[in-house]
Amino acid sequence: MSVRFAERGDKSQVEEGTALAPKFDDRGLIAVVTTDVHTGELLMQAWMNREALERTIEIGEAVYWSRSRNELWHKGATSGHTQIVKELRIDCDQDAIWLKVEQHGGAACHVGYKSCFFRRVPVGDEAREKGTDLVFVESEKAYDPEKVYGKK
Amino acid sequence: MSVRFAERGDKSQVEEGTALAPKFDDRGLIAVVTTDVHTGELLMQAWMNREALERTIEIGEAVYWSRSRNELWHKGATSGHTQIVKELRIDCDQDAIWLKVEQHGGAACHVGYKSCFFRRVPVGDEAREKGTDLVFVESEKAYDPEKVYGKK
Repeated sequence: MSVRFAERGDKSQVEEGTALAPKFDDRGLIAVVTTDVHTGELLMQAWMNREALERTIEIGEAVYWSRSRNELWHKGATSGHTQIVKELRIDCDQDAIWLKVEQHGGAACHVGYKSCFFRRVPVGDEAREKGTDLVFVESEKAYDPEKVYGKK
Repeated sequence: MSVRFAERGDKSQVEEGTALAPKFDDRGLIAVVTTDVHTGELLMQAWMNREALERTIEIGEAVYWSRSRNELWHKGATSGHTQIVKELRIDCDQDAIWLKVEQHGGAACHVGYKSCFFRRVPVGDEAREKGTDLVFVESEKAYDPEKVYGKK
């Protein structure tokens, strides 16, 4: 299979039509939001370039673009924590992707937590009373990163 | 209240500590993921600059940075579809924000749908069989954009 993206048409074509015409920013990237298909929890926010999005559609597993390593990143290639894509959505102006995935290994975050979003920031009244130090929401790591990735 | 962000420390401070030290990219922006606190559904993906994040923490309602209008964007100021922030989380490397919100007006998307992600992209076998034309997941608009925003 070779995935083809359509040319970007006018606003109503992009927003109300059926042609897949993703918009990559001036870095060549599109924002990706990945949630757990079973729990609905947000697992991570990441990036794809054109090739990563094509590969994800072709193989049905999450392939991102790693900005830090500057390379295609087949999630789970090292850790075994692959993400099987159960649904892929695109937003109104086609500049963001939503993956609903089955998370293998039970955890998405390289720090060891299920979700990368394991801390919350106090807001409003709570922030006024207690300040904005982060509060851990996941109390325990789901795995030991040293065992999976080795000592760093 | 004036919100203060911490200096970015080393990797373990940022990833395992409690100091709020968000990373804004070279455009001065941080990616934001907004979900419905009741249904868990992804409503939209947007952006904040430093001031937008400070305001969001202060007032407890979603304030984004509009890249198209190049201005602070208090979501719902025009449409009435404000977003009350029930929880704000930040990810491991503190370069992405997750808002769990109560969505007023029942819809987040300017096109009229509850979620901006109202279309899905076929993946894997389905893409091979049917191609990658978008499939509408939300069958009906939640409101009429012309009534809310006026004719464009």
